[in-house]
Amino acid sequence: MEKAKITVGIIGLGLIGGSMAIDLKRRGFASEVLGVESDPVNAAAAAKIGLVDRVVPFGECVAQSDVVVIAVPVGAAVKMLPEILDIFSSQEGAKKTVMDVCSTKESLVEAVHYHPMRSRYVATHPMAGTEYSGPWAAMPGLFDGRACIICDSHESDPASVRLVGRLYDTLNMRQIYMNASNHDVHVAYVSHISHVTSFALALTVLDKEKNEKHIFDLASGGFSSTVRLAKSNADMWVPIFSQNRDNVLQVIDTYIDKMKQFRDAISEDDAESVRSLIEEANRIKRIIR
Amino acid sequence: MEKAKITVGIIGLGLIGGSMAIDLKRRGFASEVLGVESDPVNAAAAAKIGLVDRVVPFGECVAQSDVVVIAVPVGAAVKMLPEILDIFSSQEGAKKTVMDVCSTKESLVEAVHYHPMRSRYVATHPMAGTEYSGPWAAMPGLFDGRACIICDSHESDPASVRLVGRLYDTLNMRQIYMNASNHDVHVAYVSHISHVTSFALALTVLDKEKNEKHIFDLASGGFSSTVRLAKSNADMWVPIFSQNRDNVLQVIDTYIDKMKQFRDAISEDDAESVRSLIEEANRIKRIIR
Repeated sequence: MEKAKITVGIIGLGLIGGSMAIDLKRRGFASEVLGVESDPVNAAAAAKIGLVDRVVPFGECVAQSDVVVIAVPVGAAVKMLPEILDIFSSQEGAKKTVMDVCSTKESLVEAVHYHPMRSRYVATHPMAGTEYSGPWAAMPGLFDGRACIICDSHESDPASVRLVGRLYDTLNMRQIYMNASNHDVHVAYVSHISHVTSFALALTVLDKEKNEKHIFDLASGGFSSTVRLAKSNADMWVPIFSQNRDNVLQVIDTYIDKMKQFRDAISEDDAESVRSLIEEANRIKRIIR
Repeated sequence: MEKAKITVGIIGLGLIGGSMAIDLKRRGFASEVLGVESDPVNAAAAAKIGLVDRVVPFGECVAQSDVVVIAVPVGAAVKMLPEILDIFSSQEGAKKTVMDVCSTKESLVEAVHYHPMRSRYVATHPMAGTEYSGPWAAMPGLFDGRACIICDSHESDPASVRLVGRLYDTLNMRQIYMNASNHDVHVAYVSHISHVTSFALALTVLDKEKNEKHIFDLASGGFSSTVRLAKSNADMWVPIFSQNRDNVLQVIDTYIDKMKQFRDAISEDDAESVRSLIEEANRIKRIIR
């Protein structure tokens, strides 16, 4: 009964927000999905595709939704989250919940740490995506079987945590609980650094291409998979690197050290060292399919 | 008629040699496929899987085959190639052909530049593969639709070049002609560097894992695709980095420069520079599907 009446408001109708909108409606979690999209081209596309029931202004979405999902780049989300909790203050009896889906968590939880409505916020990070962005990248089933991290849930109202848990159950996500600070360290290692290495690889090869036009005729499957993330969107990644700066810098420094070890071993034609670096790296087999 | 009588001898029954054996026999290019495999476990596996008609000793394979395919790591191939041409010298009337399938070409063509039977050698690089190795990794269709580079073909007997061309037609490979020196530069950019970046990424994250056991619970699809090549085999890659050392070092140096540009821009929280690096890297979209 309760389920049949939930209105979900999604702010930001890109890959993540749009894909959530599709499955939350289709799978019956939401009786109505409202959407907010500040970019007029994306808003028109979302309406045309029919991602949400209605595209509405920000204030209307927050006022009418039971659950508000912030699905914009993290820099904008940090400013938007306290504004939404402010609106909740004026509707206190309504017991609303707001959650975000950003890739960094510490700056968000810090931004509302002392807000009187803090408990209505649940910090989450559904770890799913592709290298594409915008409403046309949204797809059903994007989240199925993937991991979702819920941060600092002890700071949130248990009813809000349960509701968000049901939302992610609907999306078939495996839920992991963690504090925001650990989350940000871990994603620097298993997600953010992969993007930096792909961007740097693309830049390296594109530089060479300026002089040698047909270099890409030879691009192998291995190259394509390694460079794939270099297609990722600047609007999303500029704020991530900024918000998670200290962790990302630490990983980049370790990475540059490892790269230099490789460089030195190859430069000295030290086959034993090259072999031992490769065999150490091969241990990744035990961990990644 | 000629086609029905070709005996192909494949030296090295790993991923590449084994996959060639399967399709050259199935698709009727070879009437018989002989195989040589120095590792006893791999030899037993190849025989059990039935990759070739017979596993035979090296000398017997070279003596009985019309086309010999060298499919061993490039360090061993450089030593083996002149030995095979020596055997050809003693069977001169037989008009045999030898080809290799290694990822670097310059050291091979140099090794036999003055050999009296040089023209019977065709230098090739079929650009196909997976991160797995050994006879159990062999599969039908591995080469279909991929590019194959034929190097310095003007140094080879036209009949040998035609025969190798037919062999790669059978494997449905797109053939590209190039000199060996250009080949080695190009593959450093579109294949070898991808492996170095994946190895370094695996080492970086495995280092962290020593202290934080559950870091990989969070590994995203993006991380998996970026680190996939780090599973690659040391026996294959140690000699590649050695033989293509100068080109690989040059690419690594450019790569470290790009990585440092990223590091500095993030460190200074210079959003404009981070954005312009990402948007420059995004140009890879035009080139890679």
